[in-house]
Amino acid sequence: MSLTRIAIINITGYIGAEVARILFRHPRVQIVSVTGRSEAGKRLGSVLPHLAPLDLMIEPGPAEADLVFSALPHKASAEALAPLVAKGVKVIDLSADFRLKEAGLYQQWYDHAHPAPELLQKAVYGIPELHRAEVAGAQLVANPGCYPTSAILGLAPAVKAGLVGRDIIVDSKSGVSGAGRALTLTTHYAEVNENVAAYALGGHRHLPEIVQELQALRGQEKLAITFVPHLIPMTRGILSSCYAPLAEGKLAAGPQGAEQLRQVYRDFYQGETFVKVVDVPPQTKQAWGSNLCLIYPTIDQRTGRVVVISCIDNLVKGGAGQAVQNMNLMLGFPEATGLEGLPVYP
Amino acid sequence: MSLTRIAIINITGYIGAEVARILFRHPRVQIVSVTGRSEAGKRLGSVLPHLAPLDLMIEPGPAEADLVFSALPHKASAEALAPLVAKGVKVIDLSADFRLKEAGLYQQWYDHAHPAPELLQKAVYGIPELHRAEVAGAQLVANPGCYPTSAILGLAPAVKAGLVGRDIIVDSKSGVSGAGRALTLTTHYAEVNENVAAYALGGHRHLPEIVQELQALRGQEKLAITFVPHLIPMTRGILSSCYAPLAEGKLAAGPQGAEQLRQVYRDFYQGETFVKVVDVPPQTKQAWGSNLCLIYPTIDQRTGRVVVISCIDNLVKGGAGQAVQNMNLMLGFPEATGLEGLPVYP
Amino acid sequence: MSLTRIAIINITGYIGAEVARILFRHPRVQIVSVTGRSEAGKRLGSVLPHLAPLDLMIEPGPAEADLVFSALPHKASAEALAPLVAKGVKVIDLSADFRLKEAGLYQQWYDHAHPAPELLQKAVYGIPELHRAEVAGAQLVANPGCYPTSAILGLAPAVKAGLVGRDIIVDSKSGVSGAGRALTLTTHYAEVNENVAAYALGGHRHLPEIVQELQALRGQEKLAITFVPHLIPMTRGILSSCYAPLAEGKLAAGPQGAEQLRQVYRDFYQGETFVKVVDVPPQTKQAWGSNLCLIYPTIDQRTGRVVVISCIDNLVKGGAGQAVQNMNLMLGFPEATGLEGLPVYP
Amino acid sequence: MSLTRIAIINITGYIGAEVARILFRHPRVQIVSVTGRSEAGKRLGSVLPHLAPLDLMIEPGPAEADLVFSALPHKASAEALAPLVAKGVKVIDLSADFRLKEAGLYQQWYDHAHPAPELLQKAVYGIPELHRAEVAGAQLVANPGCYPTSAILGLAPAVKAGLVGRDIIVDSKSGVSGAGRALTLTTHYAEVNENVAAYALGGHRHLPEIVQELQALRGQEKLAITFVPHLIPMTRGILSSCYAPLAEGKLAAGPQGAEQLRQVYRDFYQGETFVKVVDVPPQTKQAWGSNLCLIYPTIDQRTGRVVVISCIDNLVKGGAGQAVQNMNLMLGFPEATGLEGLPVYP
Repeated sequence: MSLTRIAIINITGYIGAEVARILFRHPRVQIVSVTGRSEAGKRLGSVLPHLAPLDLMIEPGPAEADLVFSALPHKASAEALAPLVAKGVKVIDLSADFRLKEAGLYQQWYDHAHPAPELLQKAVYGIPELHRAEVAGAQLVANPGCYPTSAILGLAPAVKAGLVGRDIIVDSKSGVSGAGRALTLTTHYAEVNENVAAYALGGHRHLPEIVQELQALRGQEKLAITFVPHLIPMTRGILSSCYAPLAEGKLAAGPQGAEQLRQVYRDFYQGETFVKVVDVPPQTKQAWGSNLCLIYPTIDQRTGRVVVISCIDNLVKGGAGQAVQNMNLMLGFPEATGLEGLPVYP
Repeated sequence: MSLTRIAIINITGYIGAEVARILFRHPRVQIVSVTGRSEAGKRLGSVLPHLAPLDLMIEPGPAEADLVFSALPHKASAEALAPLVAKGVKVIDLSADFRLKEAGLYQQWYDHAHPAPELLQKAVYGIPELHRAEVAGAQLVANPGCYPTSAILGLAPAVKAGLVGRDIIVDSKSGVSGAGRALTLTTHYAEVNENVAAYALGGHRHLPEIVQELQALRGQEKLAITFVPHLIPMTRGILSSCYAPLAEGKLAAGPQGAEQLRQVYRDFYQGETFVKVVDVPPQTKQAWGSNLCLIYPTIDQRTGRVVVISCIDNLVKGGAGQAVQNMNLMLGFPEATGLEGLPVYP
Repeated sequence: MSLTRIAIINITGYIGAEVARILFRHPRVQIVSVTGRSEAGKRLGSVLPHLAPLDLMIEPGPAEADLVFSALPHKASAEALAPLVAKGVKVIDLSADFRLKEAGLYQQWYDHAHPAPELLQKAVYGIPELHRAEVAGAQLVANPGCYPTSAILGLAPAVKAGLVGRDIIVDSKSGVSGAGRALTLTTHYAEVNENVAAYALGGHRHLPEIVQELQALRGQEKLAITFVPHLIPMTRGILSSCYAPLAEGKLAAGPQGAEQLRQVYRDFYQGETFVKVVDVPPQTKQAWGSNLCLIYPTIDQRTGRVVVISCIDNLVKGGAGQAVQNMNLMLGFPEATGLEGLPVYP
Repeated sequence: MSLTRIAIINITGYIGAEVARILFRHPRVQIVSVTGRSEAGKRLGSVLPHLAPLDLMIEPGPAEADLVFSALPHKASAEALAPLVAKGVKVIDLSADFRLKEAGLYQQWYDHAHPAPELLQKAVYGIPELHRAEVAGAQLVANPGCYPTSAILGLAPAVKAGLVGRDIIVDSKSGVSGAGRALTLTTHYAEVNENVAAYALGGHRHLPEIVQELQALRGQEKLAITFVPHLIPMTRGILSSCYAPLAEGKLAAGPQGAEQLRQVYRDFYQGETFVKVVDVPPQTKQAWGSNLCLIYPTIDQRTGRVVVISCIDNLVKGGAGQAVQNMNLMLGFPEATGLEGLPVYP
């Protein structure tokens, strides 16, 4: 069986490198070309030693491939991908460029006009657990943000079933790798270590993704979502704590209601390989290095409030792993191919 | 000027040791005796090398002193302090034993009858910024929990002024030293590192403290508070993110309302040495090793929700530092004596 | 093709769990039984959530298997394995029980008589790069200690070729997972974080392994090895810095000598899948989660001293990964089966 | 009593900021001016929030002061200080510019001609425990490097007494703050966390300092020192492990010799406030945030090798604290003024 040819644009960031790491063990594809902006012309292994076994050069632009991942920053990514889409190449965009359906909303959050608005309706928002069929048929997949993946998966069953009211709070805690490999004081070791910080209190760019997807599940009633991300002194992992008032009259009172809630979640994610509804509160380490999303829904009995804890590895299910999951769907491979590894513990 | 004689019961935990570290530089007191349960008979410096300059033996029980700190676990603490209170000694209890005003509530949360319920009304809840005069006149001070300190200080101005509705969520992130020096898998290095976990989703023992103090500020209207603590891979620090709906008609719309909110906070804490209302979101590192509490109140304009970020060092303002602040008040010293040090950075 | 049946004794420590994690992705074996002492009777996934997909019960003793891994502590391990060896089962012992060839030396370092001294000569010290053929033919393999793996692989080429004198210093830095999952103050989070400590200055139990293997490579001339381990605030990884005087007259002066040294190393490890001689000083992260050992030999030109930096993941090449590598040899599988994954970065 | 006026040039790095933090609590001095290059014109508290209570503006150049600290990088520091020295101002240079006595050696290691070679003989190398009287009389003090402080203090007694041979190895492990606040991939959080690396194997700029000071203590016999620094995932702390052969016939055989060695160290540092010879191997946390240097000398009985473990906080005794200690001597204050705080634990 011939291998599908893959190119990765901008492999030199953490997300691009993680796509390569995962695909190295994928039996059905071959990475034929990788690009990087400032590092073009160097051997991949000299820039990212763990990828030395791929034995590739970093090139200025991608070679011909059957499917292309882009890990470029927003704007640059749409500009690089638009010509490939025009040529009929399948693409998965790990930037934010094709996640929002409305070009105006994109402009409002990203401070520039969308480089390829005509492709927005063509793009599929790549959470397979919500959009499996569309992803399978897509030519252009917008890989979700890391925070939105944890929040949307954590809230989707309750929001869709109308078990919660419209007032939703998502308090997310993320490891630092989500901020990427570019140097900033915010990600300087001595600043991050022994420190926790809230940020983007005026509004984080991942908020409109969360709103778009949850609102679509909810229908008419307008959700009011507050999302506050926090930076945590660790490399990988996101834990989102989601709070919402219980809708009246939907669930039994007391512990029985909490069990009903969990059953709604179990039913929603039944048969899913990567999303697990768990019986005790999960920890990010239990997903570390894997494509899992672990979800624990419960009810604060004193206040009648739904609390959902959702954990992922921000670089895997929150990035490269979900991208490979999308790739598998787009190419007709079994969805978990290349993603079979267990979380790394401890 | 003669020095006031201080004893510390159970110095061998993190909180007791931190009281000693702070008092070492206090010009008006002298630590005359320290106790520890399993380590009695050893030199303090052999058990806790950083305290070697105190040049003390760990004794089985406290010597005569003018003021006694207890860092014993709950129940043991009340049992050890009751006889001292009876003798007229001033005491500061760092355990939870005298924080709740109702013995029944205590029993509900701590699973045993209160060892000295007759002292509960005598005890003053030791947040000086809320109860300064009572602390100054108290013989028995209940030093607050670390989480409650951050949450209560963060919410007090808004709750008291009626700027927020009754639905309050406190999402707290804590370093691991708050769990103490006793060995558990939860605080084992390889389990904590690269991990974030929510815990006590069924109800944390610090919740009733938070409710008691905020409810007292609010008056009749019953608050509905959800409190979820999280364990973060760092040693010191608590950041509490507090969420509550804006009460209608109290503040102007838009950014102006947020500025009004900050002004309410500034007024509330005007003249305070240790509580600072800051203009940009604070980080726990900015309070590290100091008695500061840094508070940033703002409004999520999209949802009309108040968001307050509150940062402390859990062992200082959240424990030993606040205890020394209380001691200063009880002994008539300037409130900041011994607590002048700046946060340690980076 | 039928799968080889594997049992893991004492899966509940970090090493045992890591064997299971690696074997989960091994195409030629099946874990048929796992044991744990205090946790027997529980589902594996309730004790170690990342291993839930194995879908096994923790049993009190191992079921019949073709090959058994023991991750028991020393003494208990030999006692558990001796009957299995007698029955002809292939075993890999991850404890120290069968590493030293002399029962007297074992007793000196481990403070008790060896439980099965008659098996010591039967056991093969399982560093495949040094003892590949013996491992392939062995029934009983003693899996090396984590520190010895890094030190022996780092020094073997120079010691064997006589390029260094007899005075050798190994200064090793290890992540905390090497100390295991048992609770101690030494591995308590708040004690380890922001801390570095040297330990076992009177002699670490891994020293005699290092001496035994390097001395065997050297022949008659008696080596004088000082080994000092250090505990570092991280979970996984060992970096050993090895120092030895350059033997006179063996290498050219100046940079050319350093290049000759590197060539000796490259030749020694030519064709090895897991040991890589690298051209710039390696970091433990470059081996993280993989079975790699990265070695950088050089010469301090000012003093004519050989310096070798050797990096591994202490739980993989320093433990479970090397054990699986040994298993592959013992069962006639390709040596890298199940160990193909790249290091996890960042 | 009037306060001595202090200026700090380049306060915006970690060392400059730490000088300010320590001096904030110093009863005899007042910081009258602070400078920073890119941040001039901003309030100090907006750039470094923990220093807000100093209530100062960052200025482009220093105001008139009685003593000036420079935390500029090398070259820039000598250029800024030379005019001040000419005007008779007392200065303490935290850069490397005045540490080496020979301008040629400086040029060899720093790749440019020395900006003020005429001042080299005037400068005193500021380790008070070795050069107390010279520091007290100095106008220009070169504050030692962090690594050299730990290594020189750790080896001085043995080297001076001739207890060790000439072959010395210093293997140092440092927290990341030593690399400063400037952004580099080497100090990017996700690169440092869960990682240990050796660096500067071709020769670190702190080596010639170590050689200069130890050679001066030794006299004629030429020392052969190998120094290898390592970067550790923590913010503060240096642990240096020093290895040297025992000189023949100087100490008794066996444990008695080790005790004699410790006694030589105790005698050497008798009466010192900040250097402590300890009876069990120290850890960097035991010096964290304080000006202590903890030293444990012992003998590896199997090989007859001296091993010394030396621990400091790299930013305090290895930088700002030692600078303040030097300032106290230069200004005739008690040497420990402002440095009385105990280490922060945990």
